Amino acid sequence: MPALSAFVLNCSLKTSDKEPSSTDRMLSDLLAALEKHDVTGEVVRAVDHDIKPGVLSDEGDGDEWPALRQKIVAADIFILGTPIWMGQPSSVAKRVLERLDAFLDETDSKGRMPATGKVALVAIVGNEDGAHHCHASCFQPLNDVGFTIPANGGVYWVGEAMGDVNYVDLPGTPPVVVEMIEMAASNAAHLAAQLKEKTYPGTS
Amino acid sequence: MPALSAFVLNCSLKTSDKEPSSTDRMLSDLLAALEKHDVTGEVVRAVDHDIKPGVLSDEGDGDEWPALRQKIVAADIFILGTPIWMGQPSSVAKRVLERLDAFLDETDSKGRMPATGKVALVAIVGNEDGAHHCHASCFQPLNDVGFTIPANGGVYWVGEAMGDVNYVDLPGTPPVVVEMIEMAASNAAHLAAQLKEKTYPGTS
Amino acid sequence: MPALSAFVLNCSLKTSDKEPSSTDRMLSDLLAALEKHDVTGEVVRAVDHDIKPGVLSDEGDGDEWPALRQKIVAADIFILGTPIWMGQPSSVAKRVLERLDAFLDETDSKGRMPATGKVALVAIVGNEDGAHHCHASCFQPLNDVGFTIPANGGVYWVGEAMGDVNYVDLPGTPPVVVEMIEMAASNAAHLAAQLKEKTYPGTS
Amino acid sequence: MPALSAFVLNCSLKTSDKEPSSTDRMLSDLLAALEKHDVTGEVVRAVDHDIKPGVLSDEGDGDEWPALRQKIVAADIFILGTPIWMGQPSSVAKRVLERLDAFLDETDSKGRMPATGKVALVAIVGNEDGAHHCHASCFQPLNDVGFTIPANGGVYWVGEAMGDVNYVDLPGTPPVVVEMIEMAASNAAHLAAQLKEKTYPGTS
Repeated sequence: MPALSAFVLNCSLKTSDKEPSSTDRMLSDLLAALEKHDVTGEVVRAVDHDIKPGVLSDEGDGDEWPALRQKIVAADIFILGTPIWMGQPSSVAKRVLERLDAFLDETDSKGRMPATGKVALVAIVGNEDGAHHCHASCFQPLNDVGFTIPANGGVYWVGEAMGDVNYVDLPGTPPVVVEMIEMAASNAAHLAAQLKEKTYPGTS
Repeated sequence: MPALSAFVLNCSLKTSDKEPSSTDRMLSDLLAALEKHDVTGEVVRAVDHDIKPGVLSDEGDGDEWPALRQKIVAADIFILGTPIWMGQPSSVAKRVLERLDAFLDETDSKGRMPATGKVALVAIVGNEDGAHHCHASCFQPLNDVGFTIPANGGVYWVGEAMGDVNYVDLPGTPPVVVEMIEMAASNAAHLAAQLKEKTYPGTS
Repeated sequence: MPALSAFVLNCSLKTSDKEPSSTDRMLSDLLAALEKHDVTGEVVRAVDHDIKPGVLSDEGDGDEWPALRQKIVAADIFILGTPIWMGQPSSVAKRVLERLDAFLDETDSKGRMPATGKVALVAIVGNEDGAHHCHASCFQPLNDVGFTIPANGGVYWVGEAMGDVNYVDLPGTPPVVVEMIEMAASNAAHLAAQLKEKTYPGTS
Repeated sequence: MPALSAFVLNCSLKTSDKEPSSTDRMLSDLLAALEKHDVTGEVVRAVDHDIKPGVLSDEGDGDEWPALRQKIVAADIFILGTPIWMGQPSSVAKRVLERLDAFLDETDSKGRMPATGKVALVAIVGNEDGAHHCHASCFQPLNDVGFTIPANGGVYWVGEAMGDVNYVDLPGTPPVVVEMIEMAASNAAHLAAQLKEKTYPGTS
């Protein structure tokens, strides 16, 4: 298997100099699981960067998206991690997805977008309720712009209804979450390797 | 490339002895596009069959789901086609997805579900508005139960807001829809072949 | 305040002769809370009835929707209760919403649909994750066909991620759920009374 | 009827010094329709203001949300307008909804949130597909934080699938959209007046 790379965007609302992020904990666990499959990667906190509103790959004038976009394009696996707010992905995750919209017009001569041949995973953490909808809300635009979603490509943890337990404060990762992360990592690595070896031919 | 098979469920609310279904037209176009990639398949109208409510693979007592489930499990590519009602997938599509829930508990010794290694496409047709949400609402449960979503795995057509033009009555397929169908078919065939040759290893 | 009536549809996948439904427990609690505001009502299990696929108010040929539709139209408050499957409302709930689509064309001379002036609540119960999305997925079509959604019109309970605790087996209703139910009942009764006294004037 | 006020947030990705916004055109039409019911109001472009990420009513340090929040709290009717990107509300709309999350903890002695007794409308404009989902995605959090959704509280326009016609460039407002706007305005004014005269009693 070829060596593979992952790029992970944590779409927490909090900058990385604040208290520990539950989303970060899950993303670290996911990256550790990927390392067993020879995938190495980096986690970046999106909100540490000034991602301008817009749907172009470069909105000029202090826009820090182009550097993040470059990391997405350079990696074999893209992982979008977001907390849940009001049952939905964060506004930061939404901004990231919106900026990926530009891929729709950046096709090559075979009609393939910059994400074609890359695999995406989605990691969701919340105090309560919303993970499945967040998966749906992220899978659809990621797939629209060319990412492939491997089997069981969504991982998550949420607490009981109206709860306030934070994932980052759990004494250990629940066994069902460990299994889910292992499977998503294994599937993503397998599929990314296959697509790296022989990508989609596109249409002519 | 190995010969591949597709199974297509049309989740129209109308039985097949009634007027032509717009969803059928798109599904026929998609199957024709797949044939160019040596994929052969069959379209079945779900509502022609008595699919009982429940979340087991066999709900007994006249349940016609087991025979449909068998066709899904036997094929390399599963295509779910649904009309849009009130901006959402049909209740028939929802019933089909609900019955697939049983896959969650039907894992092999490597933790793989019956859909693992299979590819899914989603085809949406409506008079107006709702296709992206239908993609999201179908991708998420399909992926949860093990299907892989190839790049650009959703195809669709909808008319203008509050319109009443039927896709089946369009004089020809709009060129953007033709391109979209060609790409989805090409991507699905490529990925299904790769996964058929070497499926996900699962976890141990 | 005028005496008010409520009609409640439980969209469980299980017929009422099977084991107790978690959804039923929450709906009973909600109806008990409404009784304190002089609202009396009835709970019906939708799946006990043969609701045909379609988008007309009467699909003929054994269709049992017309009788249920009549109960909805006769009540001041409509409560839709559904379990969560794969993070989404049940196929039975989806069927009910689909049949309400007919209201869009059944307007009076002021453009008002049969649900105009009526209030709707949505009650969601699941082992885990999905309640907020189910609220969204029900509020939108209910509002499209004319129902008014009172403040805090969604009630719910779900357990921890991938859990298997059933609401019906909880030793008591969690205090946060009790409060949520009290508020929804109070708000629904207040608003239904106001709209019963003086309904929307419509447009001309 | 009492004089009523509306506050409108346009959640376009473009600042107001750029080209005309399609969302603005619909919001102007909606405000004009409300004026016939003695509702006066103001449209503000959210992206002209620095709305910090977070879920508190004041995130300090240059946060311009508190002034917008004050306008929401002062008005009887809140209108959220957003363009569609990738079938979903804009990241700017998502940010606004996220900041309203703070209302959940800002209850009075009767358990009522700051939005209780206020009415919300949602206006959606896009080149294509996504309006119903945007309604759902906005209704749910708005209702969670206390807003009441009047009958037919969502207005929208979208073009044909994959189209690029802008609403702002249409020669005239389509008659179905005019009717939809008139109805939403009439319903919002009626309900806001009722709730202003006698708001929800809350629970004790």
